[in-house]
Amino acid sequence: MAEQAKGGAQARTAITPTRDEDYAQWYQAVVRDADVAEMSHVRGCMVIKPWGYGVWEQLQRTLDREIKKAGAVNAYFPLFIPLSYLEREAAHVEGFAKEMAVVTHHRLESRDGKLVPTGELAEPLIVRPTSETIIGESMADWVQSYRDLPLLLNQWANVVRWELRPRVLLRTTEFLWQEGHTAHATHDDAMEYTLRILHDVYTRVVEEDLAVSVIPGEKTPGERFPGAENTYCIEAMMQDGRALQAGTSHYLGQNFSKAFNIAYQTAEGGQENAYTTSWGVSTRLLGALVMTHADDNGLRVPPRVAPHQVVIVPMLRKEGAEEVLAYARRVADELRAQTFAGGRPVEVLLDDTLYEARDKKWKWVKRGVPLLLELGPKDMANDGVSYLRRDQGPAQAVRGSRADLVAGVGALLDEIQDAYLAQARAYREARTRRDITTFDAFKAYFAEGGENAGAAGQPGFAISKWCGDEACEEKARDLGVTIRCLPFEQSGGEGPCVICGRPATVDAVFARAY
Amino acid sequence: MAEQAKGGAQARTAITPTRDEDYAQWYQAVVRDADVAEMSHVRGCMVIKPWGYGVWEQLQRTLDREIKKAGAVNAYFPLFIPLSYLEREAAHVEGFAKEMAVVTHHRLESRDGKLVPTGELAEPLIVRPTSETIIGESMADWVQSYRDLPLLLNQWANVVRWELRPRVLLRTTEFLWQEGHTAHATHDDAMEYTLRILHDVYTRVVEEDLAVSVIPGEKTPGERFPGAENTYCIEAMMQDGRALQAGTSHYLGQNFSKAFNIAYQTAEGGQENAYTTSWGVSTRLLGALVMTHADDNGLRVPPRVAPHQVVIVPMLRKEGAEEVLAYARRVADELRAQTFAGGRPVEVLLDDTLYEARDKKWKWVKRGVPLLLELGPKDMANDGVSYLRRDQGPAQAVRGSRADLVAGVGALLDEIQDAYLAQARAYREARTRRDITTFDAFKAYFAEGGENAGAAGQPGFAISKWCGDEACEEKARDLGVTIRCLPFEQSGGEGPCVICGRPATVDAVFARAY
Repeated sequence: MAEQAKGGAQARTAITPTRDEDYAQWYQAVVRDADVAEMSHVRGCMVIKPWGYGVWEQLQRTLDREIKKAGAVNAYFPLFIPLSYLEREAAHVEGFAKEMAVVTHHRLESRDGKLVPTGELAEPLIVRPTSETIIGESMADWVQSYRDLPLLLNQWANVVRWELRPRVLLRTTEFLWQEGHTAHATHDDAMEYTLRILHDVYTRVVEEDLAVSVIPGEKTPGERFPGAENTYCIEAMMQDGRALQAGTSHYLGQNFSKAFNIAYQTAEGGQENAYTTSWGVSTRLLGALVMTHADDNGLRVPPRVAPHQVVIVPMLRKEGAEEVLAYARRVADELRAQTFAGGRPVEVLLDDTLYEARDKKWKWVKRGVPLLLELGPKDMANDGVSYLRRDQGPAQAVRGSRADLVAGVGALLDEIQDAYLAQARAYREARTRRDITTFDAFKAYFAEGGENAGAAGQPGFAISKWCGDEACEEKARDLGVTIRCLPFEQSGGEGPCVICGRPATVDAVFARAY
Repeated sequence: MAEQAKGGAQARTAITPTRDEDYAQWYQAVVRDADVAEMSHVRGCMVIKPWGYGVWEQLQRTLDREIKKAGAVNAYFPLFIPLSYLEREAAHVEGFAKEMAVVTHHRLESRDGKLVPTGELAEPLIVRPTSETIIGESMADWVQSYRDLPLLLNQWANVVRWELRPRVLLRTTEFLWQEGHTAHATHDDAMEYTLRILHDVYTRVVEEDLAVSVIPGEKTPGERFPGAENTYCIEAMMQDGRALQAGTSHYLGQNFSKAFNIAYQTAEGGQENAYTTSWGVSTRLLGALVMTHADDNGLRVPPRVAPHQVVIVPMLRKEGAEEVLAYARRVADELRAQTFAGGRPVEVLLDDTLYEARDKKWKWVKRGVPLLLELGPKDMANDGVSYLRRDQGPAQAVRGSRADLVAGVGALLDEIQDAYLAQARAYREARTRRDITTFDAFKAYFAEGGENAGAAGQPGFAISKWCGDEACEEKARDLGVTIRCLPFEQSGGEGPCVICGRPATVDAVFARAY
């Protein structure tokens, strides 16, 4: 780990390498050094560490509250899916039937000191990659009458998609998510709900809590979820200019309800298939958090998703240690009595572990706690405090009175929260081109080390016209660029398709993506 | 479903069959009709339905809070465990290496319209039956110095133990639980923590929230968790007199820390293996809830674990429906402004689904909501309410003023909560014999339809002396009876071992068990 300097142009950083030196390595170093997660010894699987899981718990709490406000209730469905379920919905199996964990045996026997699988299953089971099929099976039982609709279900669960090239938090064999599954009486009701989740739950929580700015829009047919009629998404820009899909909401029409016979008796006595939706966000959001807010000293966590908004590190000498600890406890208690974010109590951790104060300071800088207080004999003598605002870098300690900090901590945390979102939004805007109208300019922009390459040698987003032809989308894909979405916010004008030059009216977000 | 009568000796019940008619069938009917859970079409796996999952969420919230108060933090570890990990701890593998889900392939290929597993794994993976081994692997990395101890981790997860004779909620192939795993510097610290979790978290939450009365104690060596040095548990009595293990906490000594090399540098510079613990409770508690509190009209949920404490069913006629609905909404809002259980807001659901009021009433009786309000034009005219206390049976509607109910609802819910625990405790006491001292009396007590057989033709608990000899334990086991625990509360005296007659000092709880 690099030695810390207190400032200056040549300041060494807590994370090695820096973003500019090697973006991919920097990402892995932050995830590890900030105690967010790590790859386990089990191929492709990760361990979510306590600090990272703590952020996930904050996200879960807010998402769960908003999902319930939207009328859905939680339930839990089996981890294992019989092969035959997957075979039922043709487009779904086509899109997914590739890399999955397959359970084939249900017993182990000890032979010559080794454990050997026995008890072969008549029908192999898949570890769920997503649960449309298994939940569809239950929905078919539960939905009988129009009075049972809408049926609005959500599940918090782990899912498995075998990854040959895993990347911690972004692409792992196992990850955690919520998956919503709903059934409705009409197309309109289902479509409205699909969009309600995208706007009122996903866009709002990801922007307001995670402080990650996103572009909501619709996927092209070629980028849809297997079996969906429409897929909507929110797309964020990472610090290397690449896009990351942060959440999706799918309108499934009657595809799954026909495959799984989710039918209801109408008020008039007829029979109709329901219209279904599904939607999810995952622990991938923790990767988005790192790639949006981390810097060369580690993670920076927006207050609303921080497990603690404040950490206090007492600076103890042999003499007077008890008094300083007592002062630190008093400050902690006073801060805990304050609120932020419209009424949430401020969570304060007093780090009284046996490590050196200096090591503890850098541990919390790297984890990115919003406010880091270092309290020593001098602070106590002055009835004062000194603290670091993580959004302003570790070199700029602020000194103030205890009373002022206590009275102002709520407003300060809200200010930090707003600053993170503003930074993320400004970053994306600065790296988004809206003036690329020719394929030559497009190719130049997305070329490695091209004209607009940022620090990491990468372009950002191009919002340009697309004629709607899949052949044009394919030509972009040949350059490693995809249409991330057709944003809901459209400029409205007409112009040449950026790929083929034919007249086009639709704006599309083009980018390299994770 | 049986027709409901308003009272009388021959009253028909909402659940068929009754407890007395067929206990096992009654249990399954309650679980299904109360929307707690159901077996899925995937062999051995269950679906936890919204009402049952809602109860689990209440339990989770309280358990999580108490676990965090005890200093543990949440994290998440892989679902898959390499075979070789299991082979490392001999006693552990011996105890567990039987029925487990084994993943052997990571790909599906489409052949002749069928999906076929391909991509065989070099080393098969086990779907975790419990996580001592995989978490031990991480602990070995995370623990370096005495400063890192204690390391107090908890995980909310699904686990899989292949069940050949599944029983919904009690014994299913997949279930949900929390599993705590901790590492400590000393035997004393680890042992103290093992017992702290049992007493301060498990006993307290299960008794105070779930209102299930338990006997805390230690397992005999023959009933210990595989690899544990001591296993502690809480044991509850179901309504057929059988015992159900409601939670366990294990002191693992240095067995796992040696197998997984969880070692630390002491303050003096030496190296020592850590002392570890593990502890868990699961969705089995939902089964305990049903078997403790349900009656012949369905489930009865104690207020502290009910997703809603109050449900309001409006009784609507064509005329004046809007006014009655407005009145119901007003009562709902007034009740929501009240608190119970020392400050929790009262959760109120206004059931405005399109089903008939009578059907809705019985739905909520069967689900066991603590207070069920039926509000019609008459109630509105009198500024009154009529409600059912689920702890007092569906025939006894109470009429009162709106103002009185609103002012008293918190106290009423607390009274209902207390009543459930008192009933559970009284039931267990009534079916516990402390006067059985000879093997003949013991055999007579535990014989099918024996002298103390309750309504379901089953005995209850016998608290009798045991000499400590495993042979005596085995003789009890031959009768289908196990020692559930050696209770912490010991009578202290000496007496004959109930099996062999030799002098003994230790009280043991004998019972048939789930």
